[in-house]
Amino acid sequence: MKPYAFGVDIGGTTVKIGFFETAGTLVKKWEIPTRKENQGGQILPDIAEAIKGELAERGLTIDDVEGIGMGVPGPVLNETTVNKCVNLGWDVFDVAAEMSRLTGVAKVKAGNDANVAALGEMWQGGGKGHSNVVMVTLGTGVGGGIIVDGKIVAGAFGAGGEIGHIKMSDTETECCGCGKKGCLEQYASATGIVRKTKSLLAETDTPSVLRDLAEVTAKDALDAARDGDAMGCEILEFVGDQLGRALSYISCVVDPEIYVIGGGVSKAGAILIDSIRDHFVQNAFHASRVAQFEQAKLGNDAGMYGSVKLVL
Amino acid sequence: MKPYAFGVDIGGTTVKIGFFETAGTLVKKWEIPTRKENQGGQILPDIAEAIKGELAERGLTIDDVEGIGMGVPGPVLNETTVNKCVNLGWDVFDVAAEMSRLTGVAKVKAGNDANVAALGEMWQGGGKGHSNVVMVTLGTGVGGGIIVDGKIVAGAFGAGGEIGHIKMSDTETECCGCGKKGCLEQYASATGIVRKTKSLLAETDTPSVLRDLAEVTAKDALDAARDGDAMGCEILEFVGDQLGRALSYISCVVDPEIYVIGGGVSKAGAILIDSIRDHFVQNAFHASRVAQFEQAKLGNDAGMYGSVKLVL
Repeated sequence: MKPYAFGVDIGGTTVKIGFFETAGTLVKKWEIPTRKENQGGQILPDIAEAIKGELAERGLTIDDVEGIGMGVPGPVLNETTVNKCVNLGWDVFDVAAEMSRLTGVAKVKAGNDANVAALGEMWQGGGKGHSNVVMVTLGTGVGGGIIVDGKIVAGAFGAGGEIGHIKMSDTETECCGCGKKGCLEQYASATGIVRKTKSLLAETDTPSVLRDLAEVTAKDALDAARDGDAMGCEILEFVGDQLGRALSYISCVVDPEIYVIGGGVSKAGAILIDSIRDHFVQNAFHASRVAQFEQAKLGNDAGMYGSVKLVL
Repeated sequence: MKPYAFGVDIGGTTVKIGFFETAGTLVKKWEIPTRKENQGGQILPDIAEAIKGELAERGLTIDDVEGIGMGVPGPVLNETTVNKCVNLGWDVFDVAAEMSRLTGVAKVKAGNDANVAALGEMWQGGGKGHSNVVMVTLGTGVGGGIIVDGKIVAGAFGAGGEIGHIKMSDTETECCGCGKKGCLEQYASATGIVRKTKSLLAETDTPSVLRDLAEVTAKDALDAARDGDAMGCEILEFVGDQLGRALSYISCVVDPEIYVIGGGVSKAGAILIDSIRDHFVQNAFHASRVAQFEQAKLGNDAGMYGSVKLVL
C-alpha cells in the first residue's frame, strides 16, 4: 500500500479534508468552503486543487497516494454514484470517476456522510475493535450508519441506516422533513428535544429552571436533567425511551455488538447513554440485550476517518 | 468446483437432506427422523450415515463432494458453532467441525434455519436475481432472514433477522415465547392470527362465517377475507398493518430491494402480500417505498437450498 491517502467530508457549508498516513494517522486536516453555485459544479474541482496543492507543498505526487475517500450528504450507490445531493445542488452522477479524472488518483470511493462517520468510529473511534457497529448521530436530525462485518450497509435504494425515519408514533400531527409524521427524528434530534421542551413548558405547570430561559436548547434540557430538574428528567426519559425502543428494533434486524452514539446531543454523555441503554434492554430481544453502548470519540473528524477508510 | 454438494435442513421432527449438483439443481431429497434423545447426540451421526450411504449407492466418494451445508433451529456463530438449540437438545459446540469429522468432507458450514431459508429464496426462489433480500416467514412464529450483498446477516449475538421480536405494542398483556410482551410474532404469526380472530369473535357482534367454525385457523380467517367477510377483512387489515409497519422499520436499517414472504400463512397469496405492501408504503421512508414484495417459491425446500448455498 502507498504511504498516504485523503479523507474528504463534504458538508453543506464546508469541506473537511484530512491528509492521512495509510496506517491510520491523521497528519493534517483543514477546511475549504463548499461553493454551491452552478449546481455545485465547483465543489469537486476545489477539492482536487486542495489535494494537488497539499501534495505539491510536501514534494509528493499522486504515486504516493493510495486513494481518496469522500463522504457526501446524500445517498451513494456502489461507492461511486451520488443519487442526488439536494444540499449541494448535485443530481445523479459518478462522483468517484469525476474526482479520479480531476486528480489522476485511480482509487476514489464515496459514501453517504452518516455511513462513513459510522465507519470512522468503527475504525478509530468509539467502536474500535468491533466489526458489527451501529452509529446513531443525534444532531439537527437523527442519522444512522450500519456496519456489518466491517462494511457499510448502504441499502438497495441508498436508505440503509436512515434510522431517523423509523416511525415511532401514530398520533403525530406535525410533518417530519421527509414528509411522514411520527419519525424518530421528530423526538430524538436536537430539534425534537427543543420541541418537546416547549410543549411541556406550555402544557404543564411542572416547575423547572428551563422556564427562566429566553430560548431553550437541547443542551439546556439535558443539563437540567443532570441537575435533577423534574422537567429535564421527563425530557431525558422521553428521549431515552424513543431511542432505546428504536435501537431494539434495529437489533432484531442486524443485531450489532455495539451502538456508538454521536452528534451534538450525545455530548450530554453518560446520563443520556444510560437512559437509552435502559430502554433498549427493556424492549430488546434477549440475545441482543448485551450489546454495548459507547459515546462517539471522533466528533467532526469521524467523516474524514471513515472516508479515508473506504480506500484502505 | 466439485460436482456435488449436500444441503441439510435440521428440524425438530425431521431432517431434510438434499443432494445437489453444484450448478444448483436439486437431484434428490429425502427425510430422516430427528432423534433428539441423549441431548441430540445421534442427530449428526444419522445425517453422516445418510450422506455416506447416498454416495456409496451412487458410486461416488467424498472427493466428488464440494461441501455440506446445514441449517439448524438456533443461533449459529461464524458459520460453524451452534449457540444452543433447545429444540434439538444441543448446547454450544462446533457443529461444522463435528460433521466434517464424521463424513471426511472438509468444507462444512452451518447457519440458522430462518437465515438459510432466506439465502435459498434469494438463490433459487422468490428473491432470485437480487442480492439484498429480507425474507419473512409467517408460520407458528414469525421468522426473518436478512441478506445483504448476498450474505446472511447473522448478528453479533446470533439474533440477526429475529424480526418476529420487534416490539409492536405497549398494551399487550400476554407474553410472547421470548418473554417480552407485544412482539410482532404475537400478531402476525398463524398463532397470532387465530388469537386475534378469537378475540374479535368474543368481543364484537360483527357477523362472520368464522362464527360457524368449531375451531378457527389462520387460513380460515384469511380465506374469509378473500370472500369479503367483514371480520376476515378486519383481521387481514390488522395483520397487514403490523407487518407493513415492521417492514418499514427494517427498510430504515438495511433497505432491501425485495421482501420475500414465506411460511404457511403466506399461502393466502396476493391479498396478504398486497395488504402488507400497502401498509409498508404508508410507513416507509420515501426512498425505500419502491421495494418489491414476492411470495416465497421454495416452500419447505428453502432450507436445503440455502444450506447448500453456504458451501458453494
